[in-house]
Amino acid sequence: MVSLNRERIHIPDVEKGIDMNILLFLTPKKEVTLLYEDYTIGQALRAIENGGHPAVPIIRRSGEYVGTITVGDLMWYVRESGLNFAEAEKLPLRNVPHSRDNQPLLASTDLTELLENSMVQNFAPVVDDRGMFIGIITRKRVLSHLCQEMKLQAFLKRA
Amino acid sequence: MVSLNRERIHIPDVEKGIDMNILLFLTPKKEVTLLYEDYTIGQALRAIENGGHPAVPIIRRSGEYVGTITVGDLMWYVRESGLNFAEAEKLPLRNVPHSRDNQPLLASTDLTELLENSMVQNFAPVVDDRGMFIGIITRKRVLSHLCQEMKLQAFLKRA
Repeated sequence: MVSLNRERIHIPDVEKGIDMNILLFLTPKKEVTLLYEDYTIGQALRAIENGGHPAVPIIRRSGEYVGTITVGDLMWYVRESGLNFAEAEKLPLRNVPHSRDNQPLLASTDLTELLENSMVQNFAPVVDDRGMFIGIITRKRVLSHLCQEMKLQAFLKRA
Repeated sequence: MVSLNRERIHIPDVEKGIDMNILLFLTPKKEVTLLYEDYTIGQALRAIENGGHPAVPIIRRSGEYVGTITVGDLMWYVRESGLNFAEAEKLPLRNVPHSRDNQPLLASTDLTELLENSMVQNFAPVVDDRGMFIGIITRKRVLSHLCQEMKLQAFLKRA
């Protein structure tokens, strides 16, 4: 489990936006490469093959976020099985241990918590108040927002 | 090859630090998981096994940066070979195609270019003016700097 640094990051420049809905930064579920927990390893590999993402969320058929699996998790599992891929791909994804499950954020989370979260994981799965997976927010998207925010501040100062 | 967005990101709040040495953000070579280009796939796997990094730099024995390999690159190569890992690990790392070589930054690069670079790749290999690999700068480190910078600006405004 990820241990978050609990020292709050207070950024008054951004505080006006502290009630900003973090969903502005969301990559919605339909655009996310994701796996269902009942997949075989083969189905998982085919799903991630074209995405090029090193880690992807796993969800239940009923929509809840389950955890995160990395390409490395899959590779080490197949390697340690001693099987070749053709054989290993028939095994269930459930068998594969997760090296690190990305910690989910509630859709109602504030920007400060999103920033803290982005310091410790490359993407945050976002869930609604029923625990249903609704998408992810990437560290790249957060960095992009901070750059835009700083540009805007600079523009307003000049004006 | 990475195609950089050439629209410059001007961030006057940071412009005072535009001549800031980006080496402040460097994870030095001795702390980086890296591979030598003459490795076998087995040596590469053992090197990355404990790091948990989804992508690592490859360098020559003479010190030059060669490119980047991802865990996925290795996995797809082994999978397509039809071999099991015990067999595939004897093959040279050189055989494995790189899905994307992270673009290196010169140590003398300014902060603006570092920010642009961080928007398109998760880490930047850093080379000196002879092309020698001296370390990496991660997107996480850049994000951390921006957060600190904004906190400092806010503190100075209050004082």
